[in-house]
Amino acid sequence: MALPDLSRCALHTITTKPWSLEQCVAGCQQAGINAITVWRNALEPYGARRAGEILRAAGMRVPALCRGGFFPAVDAAKRQAALDDNRRAIDDAATIGAEMVVLVCGAVPGMPLPEARRQIAEGIAAIAPHACASGVRLAIEPMHPAYAGDCSAISTMRQARLICEQMPWRGRDGYPVVGIAADVYHVWWDDALEDEIAIAGAKGYLQGFHVCDWKLAQSDLLNDRGLMGEGCIDIATIRGWVERAGFTGFNEVEIFSDRYWQMDQSEWLQRIVAAYLAHV
Amino acid sequence: MALPDLSRCALHTITTKPWSLEQCVAGCQQAGINAITVWRNALEPYGARRAGEILRAAGMRVPALCRGGFFPAVDAAKRQAALDDNRRAIDDAATIGAEMVVLVCGAVPGMPLPEARRQIAEGIAAIAPHACASGVRLAIEPMHPAYAGDCSAISTMRQARLICEQMPWRGRDGYPVVGIAADVYHVWWDDALEDEIAIAGAKGYLQGFHVCDWKLAQSDLLNDRGLMGEGCIDIATIRGWVERAGFTGFNEVEIFSDRYWQMDQSEWLQRIVAAYLAHV
Repeated sequence: MALPDLSRCALHTITTKPWSLEQCVAGCQQAGINAITVWRNALEPYGARRAGEILRAAGMRVPALCRGGFFPAVDAAKRQAALDDNRRAIDDAATIGAEMVVLVCGAVPGMPLPEARRQIAEGIAAIAPHACASGVRLAIEPMHPAYAGDCSAISTMRQARLICEQMPWRGRDGYPVVGIAADVYHVWWDDALEDEIAIAGAKGYLQGFHVCDWKLAQSDLLNDRGLMGEGCIDIATIRGWVERAGFTGFNEVEIFSDRYWQMDQSEWLQRIVAAYLAHV
Repeated sequence: MALPDLSRCALHTITTKPWSLEQCVAGCQQAGINAITVWRNALEPYGARRAGEILRAAGMRVPALCRGGFFPAVDAAKRQAALDDNRRAIDDAATIGAEMVVLVCGAVPGMPLPEARRQIAEGIAAIAPHACASGVRLAIEPMHPAYAGDCSAISTMRQARLICEQMPWRGRDGYPVVGIAADVYHVWWDDALEDEIAIAGAKGYLQGFHVCDWKLAQSDLLNDRGLMGEGCIDIATIRGWVERAGFTGFNEVEIFSDRYWQMDQSEWLQRIVAAYLAHV
């Protein structure tokens, strides 16, 4: 069943990267989108307080701030700097009214993945109390195994869940403070995906759902992601799993694309809306 | 512990793609390599009988013929054509004295992965009796999830093993006819890797071990693989797991690289030998 409208659609500011936050808010209003996930590069020119005012004045919901994470490092000073940065991200998220901070957990070339995963769990445990006190959740985003070398040692929903299960913190609403943001681009290939979505949903970990598409020929593994319908991901089926797992949040459109960033961004957003209604 | 010599080193003909099979055999002899895995494009100009003569005359061991597979297809005629092609690969493998045919199992854009996996298991079951009768084993090569769209719906050692466990055929030596070829490029990121290698070894499925490296910046996801030591894979640790699982076969060097194929192939092979002794 195609989605009937845009009521659950959210746009990541990075998807219309050439736009400022204000342009993005205006563009979303014109397109009928009522939720924006804010990336830190879009927030920076305004500062969190002003960005929050802009978002609230426009009546925008803010599913998430992107992104924190990058916990593992060879030296302790760098690990501490990452913790400090994550705490700032949590503060900014609270200020702009974002429900969660998305975590790209990090990986260090040459560091064994089990050690990176240990440092990731340690880092999340270190910042979770601050998130808990700030009323902000933390969402681990498992990244495609193609990014395991230098971006995220957490490659699957299962790995993310095993970390969530180590974290005792609960918000005032009773939900776990540390959960998962599932991006179809990163997890679509996994034969455990349907089961892991069900488990994450049942345990209250499923916080975010990101959509784009996996193109068969990618000119670049980072900035050539597909618009929904351009690739091979059965997004609607995965959305069905997510909804049956109890997820009622936004379907967040997050597309890195050098190609689309060169377009007129209003036209690009029109194409996104059409693709969202047809393929999400 | 670095490897002391080249006695367990094998070269894939595709690694020195510009060379004919005869040039590859001569190059290996000069470099002190005594085993060659033959790709079908290298075999074609000679035919299997002549290729087998060349390999035997040089005293070359032949771990594998690359490659069969590509089982799933939307229409039955294409699936049948794939089975016929796989049987020819088995015949050629027997003729050149290759121990196994490596299977890249296939995937079809738009076909749900579970259906592709069902067709893969069906295809392997269809050709396994012929492999069994021919004294040739079949080695499923799990491919990196980056290839799940159009190349292989089998992305992990575990998925490959679950297919192996459905296959009852045993060779005259008592070993399963259907097993696994583990390529570090495809499986290094997997948190189940060490365990799955142990299981595959104990159950007699571990047939092949391929080495190269995962470069952090790849200009092309197919033909920009790294020489051992150029990337982030801890190859020696994985080789240790493979050996503790009872594997006594060859460490097969399989590198697709537009860059290295442009080099003088004798110099390239010298670099391979040095990297093999330092990093495998």
